[in-house]
Amino acid sequence: MTSGSTIPATLAELQDPLRARLAAVQEELRRIVAADFSYISEVNSHLFRMQGKLFRPTLLLLSDEATGGPDRRAITLAAVVELIHLATLVHDDSVDHSVLRRGMPTINSMFSHQVSVIMGDYLYSRAVIELVRLDDLEPLRVLGRVTNEMTVGEMRQLLSHDRLAFDEAAYDLLIRAKTASLISGACEVGGLGAPPDQRSALARFGDALGMIFQIVDDLLDYTEDAATTGKPTGLDLREHKVTLPLIAALPRMPESGRREVSQLMATETPDDAQIARVIALVTEAGGLEYARTRAQAWAQRAEEELDHLAPSPARDALRASVAYVLERRS
Amino acid sequence: MTSGSTIPATLAELQDPLRARLAAVQEELRRIVAADFSYISEVNSHLFRMQGKLFRPTLLLLSDEATGGPDRRAITLAAVVELIHLATLVHDDSVDHSVLRRGMPTINSMFSHQVSVIMGDYLYSRAVIELVRLDDLEPLRVLGRVTNEMTVGEMRQLLSHDRLAFDEAAYDLLIRAKTASLISGACEVGGLGAPPDQRSALARFGDALGMIFQIVDDLLDYTEDAATTGKPTGLDLREHKVTLPLIAALPRMPESGRREVSQLMATETPDDAQIARVIALVTEAGGLEYARTRAQAWAQRAEEELDHLAPSPARDALRASVAYVLERRS
Repeated sequence: MTSGSTIPATLAELQDPLRARLAAVQEELRRIVAADFSYISEVNSHLFRMQGKLFRPTLLLLSDEATGGPDRRAITLAAVVELIHLATLVHDDSVDHSVLRRGMPTINSMFSHQVSVIMGDYLYSRAVIELVRLDDLEPLRVLGRVTNEMTVGEMRQLLSHDRLAFDEAAYDLLIRAKTASLISGACEVGGLGAPPDQRSALARFGDALGMIFQIVDDLLDYTEDAATTGKPTGLDLREHKVTLPLIAALPRMPESGRREVSQLMATETPDDAQIARVIALVTEAGGLEYARTRAQAWAQRAEEELDHLAPSPARDALRASVAYVLERRS
Repeated sequence: MTSGSTIPATLAELQDPLRARLAAVQEELRRIVAADFSYISEVNSHLFRMQGKLFRPTLLLLSDEATGGPDRRAITLAAVVELIHLATLVHDDSVDHSVLRRGMPTINSMFSHQVSVIMGDYLYSRAVIELVRLDDLEPLRVLGRVTNEMTVGEMRQLLSHDRLAFDEAAYDLLIRAKTASLISGACEVGGLGAPPDQRSALARFGDALGMIFQIVDDLLDYTEDAATTGKPTGLDLREHKVTLPLIAALPRMPESGRREVSQLMATETPDDAQIARVIALVTEAGGLEYARTRAQAWAQRAEEELDHLAPSPARDALRASVAYVLERRS
């Protein structure tokens, strides 16, 4: 399922030339969230233990290097983007009452719902303070807008539950706001020093990459098991989340299949057999295939945007990141 | 209990010369939070119905007028400060699982806990977007710091429950962060166009006023009934919140009194008689008197700061606002 001729890379390979800068981002992140209030430091430590793969900082640094960097400010911006991502996860887990994230207990399960809400606000406001210190309104303009879009995405997500009338246009609006906006923002602020056309190209590249990222995430929920992703297969269905594979499959299903899906949505806690049957129905009706095709179309769009940048190893790495996102298994 | 010679004013009297500008603030607020997503508009409408007295915008506009205003940007800044206040209330109510605010159902009780968390984030990020549009980093610097301080205050509040070891120094840190910081920020950004010494004087004035505001709030919880404040007497005690009257009274109580207080803190849902007994104990030990003395000391501090400003009707109104905050009954 490659798009164009790029060989898919692992994230580790993509990040290898950035090791020193990513370590600096990690340091910067610790500096930014540091508190002289011991309880907050305690929550911070837990937060760092459950931290992810620095995918957004990686894209930001590559965008920086592909447009004339390295720029020292990119380190701070990358830390801020990861911080906004973390704040969102903390509030998401609280909203969803999630118990685990990346195999670790969430802040709400480890501390409390109260601590999650306050801690998310703490991290967001630290991000704003740090952006102000950069003495430039542009990153604040981009990331303020992105943060707001993400909240609208979250609200759309709330309303997507249990709703079989949820269609592809609504799904696209949802994932663009929830996921693509921050990935787009990361690429855009990585290119802040570049001419406007390159900056916009990076924003559109990030938007397309973010769309792939979420579509693939939603596909993995149908295809991979807990051993690979850390989440049980069919978790979205279990939680009554309607995503692209199901949206695409529904109109192509026999009436009996649609009844089975409605039944699952009406069951508070669907059992494994019910989940397995709906996954089979979605697969047979071509829902997975359709979602893959959409992801590939976005991949082509993403790669085209990169033509606006001058050739460089960083641009090659951005191209390889498209293949990585498309092919990832977890 | 007046401080100096100022005659206490009602809030309505203070706001009277500002009617037109406060109406503009209200309009601005509606513009800023407007969404093209109908569910968010619905939550917004409810939010406006439970809106308060625009106390912080009033202080901001008076600070503006006392330092060379009226400045058009003060309208937007006042709307943003009120917006940050609203966002904080929405998250607070969610953290506290509150059902009512100003006699109206809270967002979390009317919609859901999920909607509250997301909606608070929505409002915060709109505030940032609006500040960026003013094309000036200074208000972002002040209000970014303030927003972060408020989250630290919230965290301190969580840890103040059930803790009889909570002392006056910890109480001061808590209320400064939770309440005084935004009132101070409102006064400071009202004076952004003024020379640095006046701007700092306004920040310190707001800090002192905010300290009075919260001390009086905590006093009212001991002295006023639901008919006046909209909250039952002793709600803080019922929720095991340790505030200044109790902190001051504890060391002056007989051993039997302290036992009674400990018992209340150990009771999940204290009954009315228990609350009434502890209120009587706190009163007899001079806890209310002590808190009043502290509020009066802050009032004197606040009034002294105003000497840094040139005489004007707006400065007189700021002085009158001290008496208003000190004397208010609800």
